[in-house]
Amino acid sequence: MVDIMHVKRLIISKDKFVRPILDLNRSVHLADGTLHLENLASANHWGVVWTSTGEPKLLAPATFKDSYDKMKRTAATIIPKDIGFIIAETGLTKESVVIDAGGGSGAVTTQLAALCKRVYSYDINENHLKTIRENCKRMDLDNVIIKAENLLTAQPPEQADVLVLDMPDPSKALLFAKKALKQSGFVVAYTPHISQAQQFAHSLDDDFKLVTVIEIMQRRWDVSDDKLRPKHNMLGHTAFLTVARLFKW
Amino acid sequence: MVDIMHVKRLIISKDKFVRPILDLNRSVHLADGTLHLENLASANHWGVVWTSTGEPKLLAPATFKDSYDKMKRTAATIIPKDIGFIIAETGLTKESVVIDAGGGSGAVTTQLAALCKRVYSYDINENHLKTIRENCKRMDLDNVIIKAENLLTAQPPEQADVLVLDMPDPSKALLFAKKALKQSGFVVAYTPHISQAQQFAHSLDDDFKLVTVIEIMQRRWDVSDDKLRPKHNMLGHTAFLTVARLFKW
Amino acid sequence: MVDIMHVKRLIISKDKFVRPILDLNRSVHLADGTLHLENLASANHWGVVWTSTGEPKLLAPATFKDSYDKMKRTAATIIPKDIGFIIAETGLTKESVVIDAGGGSGAVTTQLAALCKRVYSYDINENHLKTIRENCKRMDLDNVIIKAENLLTAQPPEQADVLVLDMPDPSKALLFAKKALKQSGFVVAYTPHISQAQQFAHSLDDDFKLVTVIEIMQRRWDVSDDKLRPKHNMLGHTAFLTVARLFKW
Amino acid sequence: MVDIMHVKRLIISKDKFVRPILDLNRSVHLADGTLHLENLASANHWGVVWTSTGEPKLLAPATFKDSYDKMKRTAATIIPKDIGFIIAETGLTKESVVIDAGGGSGAVTTQLAALCKRVYSYDINENHLKTIRENCKRMDLDNVIIKAENLLTAQPPEQADVLVLDMPDPSKALLFAKKALKQSGFVVAYTPHISQAQQFAHSLDDDFKLVTVIEIMQRRWDVSDDKLRPKHNMLGHTAFLTVARLFKW
Repeated sequence: MVDIMHVKRLIISKDKFVRPILDLNRSVHLADGTLHLENLASANHWGVVWTSTGEPKLLAPATFKDSYDKMKRTAATIIPKDIGFIIAETGLTKESVVIDAGGGSGAVTTQLAALCKRVYSYDINENHLKTIRENCKRMDLDNVIIKAENLLTAQPPEQADVLVLDMPDPSKALLFAKKALKQSGFVVAYTPHISQAQQFAHSLDDDFKLVTVIEIMQRRWDVSDDKLRPKHNMLGHTAFLTVARLFKW
Repeated sequence: MVDIMHVKRLIISKDKFVRPILDLNRSVHLADGTLHLENLASANHWGVVWTSTGEPKLLAPATFKDSYDKMKRTAATIIPKDIGFIIAETGLTKESVVIDAGGGSGAVTTQLAALCKRVYSYDINENHLKTIRENCKRMDLDNVIIKAENLLTAQPPEQADVLVLDMPDPSKALLFAKKALKQSGFVVAYTPHISQAQQFAHSLDDDFKLVTVIEIMQRRWDVSDDKLRPKHNMLGHTAFLTVARLFKW
Repeated sequence: MVDIMHVKRLIISKDKFVRPILDLNRSVHLADGTLHLENLASANHWGVVWTSTGEPKLLAPATFKDSYDKMKRTAATIIPKDIGFIIAETGLTKESVVIDAGGGSGAVTTQLAALCKRVYSYDINENHLKTIRENCKRMDLDNVIIKAENLLTAQPPEQADVLVLDMPDPSKALLFAKKALKQSGFVVAYTPHISQAQQFAHSLDDDFKLVTVIEIMQRRWDVSDDKLRPKHNMLGHTAFLTVARLFKW
Repeated sequence: MVDIMHVKRLIISKDKFVRPILDLNRSVHLADGTLHLENLASANHWGVVWTSTGEPKLLAPATFKDSYDKMKRTAATIIPKDIGFIIAETGLTKESVVIDAGGGSGAVTTQLAALCKRVYSYDINENHLKTIRENCKRMDLDNVIIKAENLLTAQPPEQADVLVLDMPDPSKALLFAKKALKQSGFVVAYTPHISQAQQFAHSLDDDFKLVTVIEIMQRRWDVSDDKLRPKHNMLGHTAFLTVARLFKW
């Protein structure tokens, strides 16, 4: 019997280090003493608690973000700058139906399921499917329909507002997109290489309008003490995003 | 009686130019003829229609994005790269309660209201309040509670998951943040100047943990024909985002 | 008889506006009065001078940079971030011999001629050649040898340390590069499109080592008064730089 | 007696790995055999040579760039994108006189000495001075005058075209700059923090004109095989460059 874990509490130290707690029925062994959580679990408690050595710790509730960040990952997953842009650029709402093609670990699926009405998640890799299923359970998402089908030959389950394609050659999915999207709906291709984005954009026929080919970059700053400069380490690249809309004649 | 307009249909030309239609009860005069929409309105119709000169046009449904893009603006508004990052970085869900401080035109308010359970929108500028109200009506959002109050001295209406601060000195709102946020909740300061971000970060006391000071940049590419290069025009800057979490002892 | 102009002086106003002066034998008409420069010319003078209305102006010497910035331009020219990178990355010295292929207005030619021993400038466009000639005269450069020849079929004049290629398909010039470069010398392709850079890199045979494909970006900041942010207008793109070295077996 | 080494040859392998050789009087032990160079040294030879196991290697001449890259470093040094911008933005020529303040390892000093007429290099740290001296010898630069003096209180040796300031508070050097620069000359402050750049810009009095506060960024691309994307690792930051000109009334 598999025990599905998800983050239930956070333990915060005085130095602001945050440690996610998956299981409230166990004791947690920290560098500065042990925390006996068993008594707290049933009480749905949070607040200050003390370790066996008398160190205070803050027991705080976990949020969706905490569970998401502890997601099981089988591959590189989409990060906030990119999934955020997709959400805002396509104008997703809690009434939206989304199809996520190329589910991977379920990062797109779970994040959009938390926000939208329903998400269909397509993948054919058994390992991926298992991971997506597990991650949905961990995050208590009951509006994900996992499809162990090849999207390229599948019949769309219902007409969606947004289709996210994370696959080597997203142009192959354009026939599916025509059937799977509502009129005026959005298709987004997430591709590491600009040549893939170009090829996808060139494959759009008269029934699609190219909205944009864009790259979102992020730059963290160090503002501590007397510092005021970008951090030296920077993520150089994740992917290019190609956004198009279905206007089928 | 004020007629609240919102985008009901899109007219797409053969050259893929998209024109949003606010009122289905009027004729639309285009360069290549007039479209008589009156007959179509009651039928909730879309599909191909013809102008008076016989030009085909595609009448397509408008989405939330279309209404959002036609939002009435009284000031510079947040753009997808930034609001998207806020949504994804704070792990917003459709169960989230959000407080938007510094409502402006309501760009943050409306976008988050479309996704979340409830949004409180604070502003004290009469003109802004009027615009936010209008924009919420246009986008059919009934889960926005507009607060014509100074947030700095206000009593929080309920405890929120996320607080977005778009104001010159967001550190002044930290006392409010402590009362207004759920334990583990997120506060995000959106500031044009890095010095403001630094000052906000330095104002965070022991009850907050700084998550990141970050800038999101975007770069559009030209992939048409033989081209494969970033566009020459680039938006150089919008704002710095400072994200912190409430862990109140 | 053509009068070759070059910048001889700068007139600086109290508000720090800088106006380059090409001809010291003429009066200069400014918004706040006329400056009679004729008397000053022979004296090689600079310092404070007064307009006819009694406004003080600073007459300052022009530098190479001032002449360069007033260069006659017949096409888009390379800017400091890019030519600077080429200079530093190839380790140019005042003993270096350079070949500039695709002379255009002579921006690369003149800038490198000011720093290096000798520059050969190839172009076949009559208009370009005339402009390069003019610009070299204006900047008093006597170490530029202009070649009105097709570089692709030309015999190298001497072996160079660096070859700069600014042409649509720089890979066509690789045969020339093998003959024209000293062993260990550098070839740099300046191309607007990343696909051109890729094609050039893929065309390098065993006698070349790819050093890097790089893009140099620049971002100006506004630090005036209470501001501390990147400027909103940003140059999105100029070119990709591909650097390789000749190691001929 | 210290043996000053500098790069005399490069050994290139079939796989294009480049190995700089400092001493031609020694044998070089490689993974695939030993290269006996002693016989080649006097002959000033390059071309294909064979290791003791019969592997061919290319013996190629070293350039200034190779010696520069093997420079002894006692601190972080300026990189091509930044020193290149300084060179091009100030319009340096081989007639220019430069003062480098905050010599460090001599990266600015040596690079500019290779291009310009004369460079004065100021530092007061004994270790730095020793390193600068060594690096100048290695690179055969005889036009560097090393000044073991505090620039803030020093008398300028002669009037320079460009002054480069790499120090925590460059505004302290503005008095020196006024005496040390030719009229119309350039001062460049290289500072890691944007707050330093701002402070420097605000310290410029009426005798200086702020030209720009700028950041130069670089992004390397992977164009190998089927790839066409920026590299994942990116240098996030080096410094901000503030450029001003002396227009002394």
